[in-house]
Amino acid sequence: MGAAIAESRRAVGNSGVNPPVGCVLVTAGGQLLASGHTGIEGVPHAEAAALASLDDMGLSAIRGGTAYVTLEPCAHLGKTPPCADALIAAGVARLVVAIKDPDTRVNGAGMQRIAAAGIEVCLGVKADEAYDVMRGFINKIQYNKPLCSLKIAASIDGKIALADGKKRWLTGPGMRRYVHLLRSQADAIITGIGTVLADNPQMNCRIAGLEDFSPPVFVFDRFLRIPSDAALFQSQHPVTLFCGAGAPADRRDQLSAAGCVIVVLPDDANGKPDVEAALRYLGDIGVNNVLVEAGTGLVTSFLAADAVDHIYWTQSDHILGSDALPAIGVLMSPTSSPPPHGTVTDRSAINTVAIFVENKYIQSHHQVIGNDRLTILRKQPVNSGEAQA
Amino acid sequence: MGAAIAESRRAVGNSGVNPPVGCVLVTAGGQLLASGHTGIEGVPHAEAAALASLDDMGLSAIRGGTAYVTLEPCAHLGKTPPCADALIAAGVARLVVAIKDPDTRVNGAGMQRIAAAGIEVCLGVKADEAYDVMRGFINKIQYNKPLCSLKIAASIDGKIALADGKKRWLTGPGMRRYVHLLRSQADAIITGIGTVLADNPQMNCRIAGLEDFSPPVFVFDRFLRIPSDAALFQSQHPVTLFCGAGAPADRRDQLSAAGCVIVVLPDDANGKPDVEAALRYLGDIGVNNVLVEAGTGLVTSFLAADAVDHIYWTQSDHILGSDALPAIGVLMSPTSSPPPHGTVTDRSAINTVAIFVENKYIQSHHQVIGNDRLTILRKQPVNSGEAQA
Repeated sequence: MGAAIAESRRAVGNSGVNPPVGCVLVTAGGQLLASGHTGIEGVPHAEAAALASLDDMGLSAIRGGTAYVTLEPCAHLGKTPPCADALIAAGVARLVVAIKDPDTRVNGAGMQRIAAAGIEVCLGVKADEAYDVMRGFINKIQYNKPLCSLKIAASIDGKIALADGKKRWLTGPGMRRYVHLLRSQADAIITGIGTVLADNPQMNCRIAGLEDFSPPVFVFDRFLRIPSDAALFQSQHPVTLFCGAGAPADRRDQLSAAGCVIVVLPDDANGKPDVEAALRYLGDIGVNNVLVEAGTGLVTSFLAADAVDHIYWTQSDHILGSDALPAIGVLMSPTSSPPPHGTVTDRSAINTVAIFVENKYIQSHHQVIGNDRLTILRKQPVNSGEAQA
Repeated sequence: MGAAIAESRRAVGNSGVNPPVGCVLVTAGGQLLASGHTGIEGVPHAEAAALASLDDMGLSAIRGGTAYVTLEPCAHLGKTPPCADALIAAGVARLVVAIKDPDTRVNGAGMQRIAAAGIEVCLGVKADEAYDVMRGFINKIQYNKPLCSLKIAASIDGKIALADGKKRWLTGPGMRRYVHLLRSQADAIITGIGTVLADNPQMNCRIAGLEDFSPPVFVFDRFLRIPSDAALFQSQHPVTLFCGAGAPADRRDQLSAAGCVIVVLPDDANGKPDVEAALRYLGDIGVNNVLVEAGTGLVTSFLAADAVDHIYWTQSDHILGSDALPAIGVLMSPTSSPPPHGTVTDRSAINTVAIFVENKYIQSHHQVIGNDRLTILRKQPVNSGEAQA
């Protein structure tokens, strides 16, 4: 199952609306015969990919062997024939599954069909690890929105740029490559018009060999201010613009004609971008994992809306001082009104949320990359524990 | 020499005006006979401590053996007799030294005296490591001020407390113990009156067995506002107050009578505490290593004055938001005027310094302690290299 999970990781961010699944086929004698993972846009399924590679080897069946699959095989006809039937036809004697498919069209039916064919079925092997690889997909099934990861690139004192907004690459080349890898593992990237106007980023994956895995980009751009020659449009991947109802009609027409998808989102109660509405839209179109790379405003909106599951905090050695631009702005309750710019009227409400937020994320991984540091923070389940002693 | 350097580390922060030195004595056959390090307040010297432990074992000499010392033995009569003579008398056949003593009273004279007695002298073994342990002492000799280390305890976004100044322990118990160890290795601690009034800290080392190694505390307190019942005064170690010329005379008298040392410092050109004057004072009284633990204002003054050699940046997982108190304030040139509060008049001057400062420190060590992270940054020698590529 370890090998099947390793296979499944290769599909993260590239399995379309499908989950990233891995499958390995082993003979009765324990010899590894073939492996496969979910293909681009979900085709083929992992089991079909493994069985196809068996065919390539001149073998047509694994009579008496075992199939290890990270997710229950499907039992319904979708874009591909049911994998349950394919495994039965291949003569598998035993099926080992990490987790049951929560998709209502499967949800145990695949394992039942296989067991009914007289095949031994074993469920729950390395379930936690398999779950971790597929948590974007499962999140989408459970909450109808993708798993939301936030990337921050900051100085050691939590700043992202000098006070004049002057663009700087704070982290070094190794860490920037890591961020490109992160992009290749996302199904979508979210950014804001502020970042587009300030930095004109490409927001793609520029690691050699992974260029084709750059995900589509979604831009919060209420008034459709994005320039027609923005670097984002140079990528082969589609750009979707989240605008407000007040966006100029002529810009909508121009940008639609140029191939952009335009999605009108309601503003939230505070006149801020409705982060939840955007995530629901992404869930509806089948996005499993989204990566947010944005400036202070949009990042703070995501945190204040409690919409972030994982934070990838990358940090350099720089010290920029308190007049530089902060990675995180003022955190306040999404239901309370924001104070007028430059004043703080309801300090207690803000602090309540700050205290809440500050206990919400804890380190799940940490490493040094080049001269920079990566800390991955994960949101804790509600009521998972007290603040530190 | 590795063993001698390990010995020398035991004396850091506890060798008084003397350098922390280590010494091991080895027989002609290579057997380790004895070891020693500089004692409390510099007495005994490391060589004398090692020779005394030889006596304890009933041996009076190491005829034909080798002495490894991290710093050249002294040749002059100070608080103790010259170590060079003691090593000659003990019958050492070979002396191995890591670095020459830069103290003008020694500076090669110790090795000359030993070589003149027909003993083989070898200089430069593990010089970098030995230098590292003694860099406070060497800094004091070179610049007439101690090596200045700054400790920061911040959230991942660089904040030290909530906006209302509410005190919180951001880092966990393991990291706080590490900070107590740092204190035990300092010869002095500097803090500010703001920290004393907000937190009423003890600023001592509370690790079991190291309580006696709490260093004396020096407080920047321009108007002598420190309460007579401050927790600082509960420690057995002396408290020195750096005040301005305008401090009330009656407070000076009261605090002097209560056992405080009062030192009047000039304000600098910006009406800020004169950080350099304080460090020169500490150098004059023989402090090798000072640790700064203070709030935003004093920390920023030390950085802006370019007075910090090492930064011990400890970081928790908390996210406090941009309205929380920053670890580092606005960095500006020590020679330029500060802008009026709330306005920024000379943005370009500030940015110049920010860019300067941001390339000044780079990571020399990093580790995870509990759920927190420690990054040790060291100031780079001037013109040591370019900013990142």
